[in-house]
Amino acid sequence: MDWSSDLRDLIETRRELHAHPEAGWTEFWTTAYVASSLEDIGYSVSVGKDVIDQSAIMGRPDDVDEHIERALSQGADPLWIDKMGGYTGAMAVLDTRRPGPVVAFRFDIDCVETIEAEGEDHLPSREGFRSINPGCMHSCAHDGHTAMGIALARRVMSMKDRLCGVVKLLFQPAEEGVRGGYAMTQKGLLDDVDLFVAAHFGMGVPTGTVISGTRGFLCTTKLDVDFKGMGSHAGGEPHKGKNALLAAATAALNLHAIAPHSGGVTRLNVGVLNAGEGRNVVPPRASMKIETRGETNEIASYVYDRAETVIRSSAEMYGVKWETKKVGEAVTSSSDAELMATVAGLASEIEEVDKVGDIVDMGGSDDATWMMNRVQQRGGKATYVIIGSDIAAGHHNDYFDFDERSMLIGLKLLVGVVAKAAGVV
Amino acid sequence: MDWSSDLRDLIETRRELHAHPEAGWTEFWTTAYVASSLEDIGYSVSVGKDVIDQSAIMGRPDDVDEHIERALSQGADPLWIDKMGGYTGAMAVLDTRRPGPVVAFRFDIDCVETIEAEGEDHLPSREGFRSINPGCMHSCAHDGHTAMGIALARRVMSMKDRLCGVVKLLFQPAEEGVRGGYAMTQKGLLDDVDLFVAAHFGMGVPTGTVISGTRGFLCTTKLDVDFKGMGSHAGGEPHKGKNALLAAATAALNLHAIAPHSGGVTRLNVGVLNAGEGRNVVPPRASMKIETRGETNEIASYVYDRAETVIRSSAEMYGVKWETKKVGEAVTSSSDAELMATVAGLASEIEEVDKVGDIVDMGGSDDATWMMNRVQQRGGKATYVIIGSDIAAGHHNDYFDFDERSMLIGLKLLVGVVAKAAGVV
Amino acid sequence: MDWSSDLRDLIETRRELHAHPEAGWTEFWTTAYVASSLEDIGYSVSVGKDVIDQSAIMGRPDDVDEHIERALSQGADPLWIDKMGGYTGAMAVLDTRRPGPVVAFRFDIDCVETIEAEGEDHLPSREGFRSINPGCMHSCAHDGHTAMGIALARRVMSMKDRLCGVVKLLFQPAEEGVRGGYAMTQKGLLDDVDLFVAAHFGMGVPTGTVISGTRGFLCTTKLDVDFKGMGSHAGGEPHKGKNALLAAATAALNLHAIAPHSGGVTRLNVGVLNAGEGRNVVPPRASMKIETRGETNEIASYVYDRAETVIRSSAEMYGVKWETKKVGEAVTSSSDAELMATVAGLASEIEEVDKVGDIVDMGGSDDATWMMNRVQQRGGKATYVIIGSDIAAGHHNDYFDFDERSMLIGLKLLVGVVAKAAGVV
Amino acid sequence: MDWSSDLRDLIETRRELHAHPEAGWTEFWTTAYVASSLEDIGYSVSVGKDVIDQSAIMGRPDDVDEHIERALSQGADPLWIDKMGGYTGAMAVLDTRRPGPVVAFRFDIDCVETIEAEGEDHLPSREGFRSINPGCMHSCAHDGHTAMGIALARRVMSMKDRLCGVVKLLFQPAEEGVRGGYAMTQKGLLDDVDLFVAAHFGMGVPTGTVISGTRGFLCTTKLDVDFKGMGSHAGGEPHKGKNALLAAATAALNLHAIAPHSGGVTRLNVGVLNAGEGRNVVPPRASMKIETRGETNEIASYVYDRAETVIRSSAEMYGVKWETKKVGEAVTSSSDAELMATVAGLASEIEEVDKVGDIVDMGGSDDATWMMNRVQQRGGKATYVIIGSDIAAGHHNDYFDFDERSMLIGLKLLVGVVAKAAGVV
Repeated sequence: MDWSSDLRDLIETRRELHAHPEAGWTEFWTTAYVASSLEDIGYSVSVGKDVIDQSAIMGRPDDVDEHIERALSQGADPLWIDKMGGYTGAMAVLDTRRPGPVVAFRFDIDCVETIEAEGEDHLPSREGFRSINPGCMHSCAHDGHTAMGIALARRVMSMKDRLCGVVKLLFQPAEEGVRGGYAMTQKGLLDDVDLFVAAHFGMGVPTGTVISGTRGFLCTTKLDVDFKGMGSHAGGEPHKGKNALLAAATAALNLHAIAPHSGGVTRLNVGVLNAGEGRNVVPPRASMKIETRGETNEIASYVYDRAETVIRSSAEMYGVKWETKKVGEAVTSSSDAELMATVAGLASEIEEVDKVGDIVDMGGSDDATWMMNRVQQRGGKATYVIIGSDIAAGHHNDYFDFDERSMLIGLKLLVGVVAKAAGVV
Repeated sequence: MDWSSDLRDLIETRRELHAHPEAGWTEFWTTAYVASSLEDIGYSVSVGKDVIDQSAIMGRPDDVDEHIERALSQGADPLWIDKMGGYTGAMAVLDTRRPGPVVAFRFDIDCVETIEAEGEDHLPSREGFRSINPGCMHSCAHDGHTAMGIALARRVMSMKDRLCGVVKLLFQPAEEGVRGGYAMTQKGLLDDVDLFVAAHFGMGVPTGTVISGTRGFLCTTKLDVDFKGMGSHAGGEPHKGKNALLAAATAALNLHAIAPHSGGVTRLNVGVLNAGEGRNVVPPRASMKIETRGETNEIASYVYDRAETVIRSSAEMYGVKWETKKVGEAVTSSSDAELMATVAGLASEIEEVDKVGDIVDMGGSDDATWMMNRVQQRGGKATYVIIGSDIAAGHHNDYFDFDERSMLIGLKLLVGVVAKAAGVV
Repeated sequence: MDWSSDLRDLIETRRELHAHPEAGWTEFWTTAYVASSLEDIGYSVSVGKDVIDQSAIMGRPDDVDEHIERALSQGADPLWIDKMGGYTGAMAVLDTRRPGPVVAFRFDIDCVETIEAEGEDHLPSREGFRSINPGCMHSCAHDGHTAMGIALARRVMSMKDRLCGVVKLLFQPAEEGVRGGYAMTQKGLLDDVDLFVAAHFGMGVPTGTVISGTRGFLCTTKLDVDFKGMGSHAGGEPHKGKNALLAAATAALNLHAIAPHSGGVTRLNVGVLNAGEGRNVVPPRASMKIETRGETNEIASYVYDRAETVIRSSAEMYGVKWETKKVGEAVTSSSDAELMATVAGLASEIEEVDKVGDIVDMGGSDDATWMMNRVQQRGGKATYVIIGSDIAAGHHNDYFDFDERSMLIGLKLLVGVVAKAAGVV
Repeated sequence: MDWSSDLRDLIETRRELHAHPEAGWTEFWTTAYVASSLEDIGYSVSVGKDVIDQSAIMGRPDDVDEHIERALSQGADPLWIDKMGGYTGAMAVLDTRRPGPVVAFRFDIDCVETIEAEGEDHLPSREGFRSINPGCMHSCAHDGHTAMGIALARRVMSMKDRLCGVVKLLFQPAEEGVRGGYAMTQKGLLDDVDLFVAAHFGMGVPTGTVISGTRGFLCTTKLDVDFKGMGSHAGGEPHKGKNALLAAATAALNLHAIAPHSGGVTRLNVGVLNAGEGRNVVPPRASMKIETRGETNEIASYVYDRAETVIRSSAEMYGVKWETKKVGEAVTSSSDAELMATVAGLASEIEEVDKVGDIVDMGGSDDATWMMNRVQQRGGKATYVIIGSDIAAGHHNDYFDFDERSMLIGLKLLVGVVAKAAGVV
């Protein structure tokens, strides 16, 4: 097989996506781009409200309408924007009408809120595909994932007469902050899936290495807290205030003092705290951005429950109202050994792969776990594959860049999964 | 008049009392001593349960029975101990059966929990009347007040044929921690009083000066808090504990951060915090001794209410049970101008007095305020007099000692009040 | 005398100023407006760097150049802007060349950072002179003070042949945050002054009442704190971070727990705390806006010194660098009885005045105190006068508006002071 | 071999020891008892200062002299007491003068500070060997360890003609709080050892099971902190105090907020906090008992260093002096596979053993690790064996009791180790 045009397409698509990064739930340009591409290839495509359970959405920002305007001004197809109904994400399905397994892939499409580096040292800047959206950057390789998904769509379509069963390509919004995976899962998109593969570039693994599975995802919850107290003149009437800043400070300290759990790793971070209005006013409001993590659901629940208690008590201590909002959540999961073996076998036959690794500990979080668990619960098999890629700087860093050749390795692997599932190879 | 034998008696009595200091609600030896002395002089004396409203008691310790044994072993008269019924304090009444005002005096009889200094530098030690009760010391001059009360009883009895109305001498237990004044007031002892005088030696005023009145007593509440959590092995099962130490630490910090009140002075002190059991055990218990103060009842309530909220929220933050117990309370009060003028006039005629001062700001608390307020509410007049006295070290210090000559000044003044009230002078 | 044109002028000038509010150190339009007006009247006018000791400036923002541009675009005279040399404030001097006292008046010219209310309920909005500078509003009557200063300049010039001595009119920048008074004082402008008057409208006093003096200004210091720690991935490498948010939270709590002072009122407020960058990053930075106050210089120093210790220790506790910057400061002061009597006498003769009050307790801060103290130190007399004014909403509130008629009362009073000082009346 | 008399002796010795529990560094009765017994058997015995490096002692109490008196009054041999020179612990050595390995065993001899349960439910009470030392109890089976050591001494002596090399029996003081192991190691007692075995009864393993090795000891440091501030009257002069209680509370909270380490488990516990003197006094002193733990030396150092910083900064924040004292320390260690295999083989041949387990994770701390590491550093082999034992209640609980039959299993195992080392079996 000749893959040289695939690599050219991959790079071109990736760079187009890289220049148009969009943060979670605002991927209107990206969704329109993906949907157009897939439709052009010949897929039936669903977008937005048709692939998202709105009641299961977490952490969606308030300024979605402005992003729709922006996307349109950047050339997004108004017809697709209209179909989305205000929500992002897409799914392409190829139903062969022949008996066979349902095989699904997850590609995450959102970017990180990073200000992209400039200058000759940074390839996207040097080569002219740096982000046009200030404060937004594809610094976690989701542009690569999405490009690989479109390339896979093209290859799968070209094989369609030899395949059986169904192939589903899921383009998930809002993976950063683990906000979108649950809403796609709750929409039922995974309910009929037999084989599920998510893939991620990099993750500390070099180009040429493939890791066939992952375990040890930390369960995590992202929550926003708002405290609402009462202002008063700090010199003249200090006793009349209800001090939201001190409530938040007390919460922050005591949240970090939550006892560890003997059953495994726990984490908690108050990442952001903003409080107060004027220097001489008892601070009437405060807000915090928090994340909790635990090695298992039980441990994560322990941390989260303790956190809620600390927040509530801190607010009550200062007579302050509070509101907590869950803005992201992911669970733990593990890859299936059988599917890992299949992937490992396929990987070892790829020319550019020089090493196939065993399962690794994630030590982080990804909301593809909701999808993996849903598939496993009904008897399907799932894995989360790491496609090694040399990177220019750490994930989320403003100089992040991955090795574009790894996209071809990933593509070959996923094409292999489809072929294997259909019994073609 | 010849007062030389009065001074001898005052000194002798004071030193006997000084050697037998007893903390609040455990003044069994002292009460028996006072009662015997007054009965010998010819008074009808009530003690213990007959002068105390048991439902209004605050901060009474649990080991009262042991103190009864101690008092007996130190020579307290068993008959008086028996009459007390477990409660301390005494009242002597002289009813002239002639129409006239009811005049009452308050003498506080308890000591401070201080370890008395030893050595030649400390007069009570040098002269051989240092405390025989370890950890107990008359370091606030209540021994002097009590001696003055007994001496007054003697003088009054000797004048009885020239007097009219009623004279009441109240020997109040548990002034330290403001625990006993309310219980005597609630017993109704002040309900018929027309003129009320409490007096205190020292208070930063030198021998020879008399201050005729006081205002600005801080309202205060003393409270004990107990936190009950759950222990667990700090290394092996840290998440199973409910940490009472951290609840108390959080409470302490946030109590001290209670906002000041623009209406006047506020004070709060966590004076004692004890928590934990073993180094490697999540601390299952903690206790705190706290006092709150405010310049007015409203301000004091503000501080106390805020304190309760902070305590409750700190406990809830750590899933810890808590109990707060009010163990002392005093209100604010002010001396009456008319009675102050009378006192000032009498004081200016005393040979040893070289200066008579106006009203001063107390800046502290005394539960004689309950009595003052009760008298004033029914139309009587009350004042709190400062009898200047050179002191060897600050009140409550282990080297505290006052100038015994000030007792004679005080005695002359109070005799004057009685005489004036009866129209004798 | 006919004052009707004065009132018309006062209102017109005040409304022009009200529409052009500028925050401390950015009053370029205002300074140019004042300087032009005074020069037109016939004064020799100094501005900016000639009235400000640059080494004594506190709390000057970084974006001064942008405000110069803004002021120019709003019509400020480029010649005046040029003379200012980047600094605001103005002084007009009338030297009669005849022997006599040096009389000085302070008018503050800056606005508050408030978003001004809109709509029919708010007179400046209804009458069309609402702020044209978003986020800036004359909500503390400094527009009125400044208008009164210009009107006074006109009246004084018309009296010049009958006057003796010198009249100085100081238009002070940056009174809000007590930032500018010290820099004018350090420039030496008050060093030859015999009589000094500052005046403020409103302050809880109704139209028609004049208060001849003030005492009990709280000493205050405004300080900004920056904490600089180190970020790290909160899930993956929590131990590598240096948590600036927790340093700030610890500081905030312990700052508010600074013990009160028995010598008088203390105040401390952490008005603003902003910390952190991303939810999953150990917070690498934090900042706080703080103010400390005390009833005397000694008490204020106690609070400030304790605050510095708490801030330094909190930073060190988390291995975080810190920087504190004094951005404002004012001292305490009291009006002179003699000058107050003069003012009271003059006020009682004003037709529109129905009540003349005694000295009042300020309970707040104003950096005119630097000027008062400088004058008093060299034997001069100073007072801070309250010109009662009915207000629509509290000072600094977005609906604040004062009774414009009070400007005429103030003008008459200050004209009287000048006349009296010259022996004219 | 007949072991029935061994079991009788073990039980008798253990019960004698159980009745005389002594806390770390005060085991004078126990040391004298052990030394007498070993000397009677025929050993050359060193005690106290001859087995302890005094400069390496941690956590020795101040009242040692009183415990010497107590031990003498309970029948300790004055000659042994004299030889100890104020220090506890003993070593018996059998040197066969034939070439062969040096084999050493560690037996810990101190008790826990627990008030032993009373009544029929508790076997030591029912059978009459409950603790005679109030507040002291063998609730961690060290009485059994010591009895096993003496029994081993007897068996070894009886085999002496068939043995080669050297056998060393170490009776270590102060294992609780990990205070004594380092001082014995630093004395050089382990410097020539080839094979080292420590054994512990129970640890969650039932009678009949033997675990041949242990890993994952947490490195730990025990530290005491004293804060010394300055008292002052909380109502009258709050600003004059230096509040040690608030320093300690701030330390406690921030110590528990020390960030976890991504390299492995960390633990910190403030187990005890005592602060303050009187309710109305700004607390002049506070003390804390703390322990820090980490999975490796690096991680443990991280926690300890952070703890020191937090303590120092908290003290400085309140102007309080502080002193930290290291009162215990243990490192991590792992059993050697080879020696574990030997032990496992021997255990499997013991009649009463029904299960031999692999290495287990300790999850706790024991200062035998100092000895293990010293032996391993010079090429020797070491292991820490768990001798299963059914227990009546958890270790350190007041109802703790172990299955005395496990002592015989342990004895057989250790005799086996000696024999195997000498090539006898």
